[in-house]
Amino acid sequence: MNFLEKLRAAARQNKSWLCVGLDSELSKIPTFVRERHGTHAVFEFNRAIIEATSDLVCAYKINLAFYEMLGPVGLEILSKTRELIPQEIPVIADAKRGDIENTARAYAKALFEYYRFDAATVNPLMGFDSIAPFLEYSEKCAFLLVRTSNPGARDFQELNCAGKPLYQHIAEKARQWNTRQNVGVVVGATAPQELSLVRRIVGDEMPILVPGVGAQGGDLERAVKNSFNSRGELAIITASRSVLFASQERDFAQAARKAAQELRDAINRFRA
Amino acid sequence: MNFLEKLRAAARQNKSWLCVGLDSELSKIPTFVRERHGTHAVFEFNRAIIEATSDLVCAYKINLAFYEMLGPVGLEILSKTRELIPQEIPVIADAKRGDIENTARAYAKALFEYYRFDAATVNPLMGFDSIAPFLEYSEKCAFLLVRTSNPGARDFQELNCAGKPLYQHIAEKARQWNTRQNVGVVVGATAPQELSLVRRIVGDEMPILVPGVGAQGGDLERAVKNSFNSRGELAIITASRSVLFASQERDFAQAARKAAQELRDAINRFRA
Repeated sequence: MNFLEKLRAAARQNKSWLCVGLDSELSKIPTFVRERHGTHAVFEFNRAIIEATSDLVCAYKINLAFYEMLGPVGLEILSKTRELIPQEIPVIADAKRGDIENTARAYAKALFEYYRFDAATVNPLMGFDSIAPFLEYSEKCAFLLVRTSNPGARDFQELNCAGKPLYQHIAEKARQWNTRQNVGVVVGATAPQELSLVRRIVGDEMPILVPGVGAQGGDLERAVKNSFNSRGELAIITASRSVLFASQERDFAQAARKAAQELRDAINRFRA
Repeated sequence: MNFLEKLRAAARQNKSWLCVGLDSELSKIPTFVRERHGTHAVFEFNRAIIEATSDLVCAYKINLAFYEMLGPVGLEILSKTRELIPQEIPVIADAKRGDIENTARAYAKALFEYYRFDAATVNPLMGFDSIAPFLEYSEKCAFLLVRTSNPGARDFQELNCAGKPLYQHIAEKARQWNTRQNVGVVVGATAPQELSLVRRIVGDEMPILVPGVGAQGGDLERAVKNSFNSRGELAIITASRSVLFASQERDFAQAARKAAQELRDAINRFRA
């Protein structure tokens, strides 16, 4: 089963296009969990969040930075967290890697073989040979950064290059490089107009990963209306902090479940 | 002592602007080392290379991909390798990270605080707020990718944007963001004309990291002549595979030393 099939099956089963981002930064985890478990609070927190939300999502996204900052033990926690996620839910490594060919091959190996992620975000600035090693895995998916959700996206991604903004050139290359149906794109919910332009460029069969609806303040309704394909599918709406840290109290997992459920239902309402 | 001072001191002490890249991919390490040490061959190999070359370099560069592909134990080896390097030699994390602000902060923490690197390569595609957390460390250095050494560099970095190629826009931003003397740029030796243009844009006080002279085939003489500043300093010429894997026999460390020495001396000849 390739990534698109796995994603569609999970979306169907859970009636959801919501992806929960496990950006589980140690210092933001409820104090009582940290006091009991120290650094391993990240694992215990993830376990509770996954148990509370795995029937509400089409995918999880794990942001490697929050694990790497803990040193090698953080990568042990990453590995154990990945094992906890039910097999039928695809897991996206939010790693934004990009390097020359032999190095990109090592990054792809780390993410797809060692940690067994189903997909990874990649940074396309270095061009085709920095992406190609990821695309050799036909059952996985590489999500190219096209138009990111942060303020700095304007510095380079919106520069007018040969008649159109850089991000549109990247979206066109994403479509061109998608000969094995294993390319996706990342477009922030904070850029709703760009979302609809990119959907037009990449067509109906490419998944769009859409971060930025929670803590970053993107408008959910516009993001949903502009990112789904003509059959109302293949946009992966991602929320991290607004779900994970919905409560700092003992009810944190239930609060996360409630936040995820509301978000899932709102996405479905706007899709209809 | 900030990064530039540390770099200049090491370059003076070792009469060298050569940086050896510890891209120590397990499968390329001499068989007899792998047979004796298994995965830890990476550490034993690095120890021998560092002992054989630490009086010949101005810096080491460690490419994280080749450690990450081994899983958490690879990060243990990374950490132990970093500890082996003599304190007076600056160490650059070749990680090419770049993400939204709170995530970039976690990556900077991992590289600068946990692993105590002196500098890191960063990918500027996501703009200022993805770089800013690295620049808050005034004693460290962030090297922005400007014009990389690989074939794919042409896909986006050379697109004509508002009258000049994208990489020149990035070089101008690098200069503008260098308010604390802790920004550097990466330009590949395979692009000698672009090297001299970037040196003109960034001025005399910014270090340029120059990969691509060994296995990637960049012309050393042109790279050196186009990258050093007017006082013949602040270009960090990086070689990895051509030094590390100079021999697969028991003399591998001496062979690496010989390759490093020849390269150091050639750089100094062309600088003169």
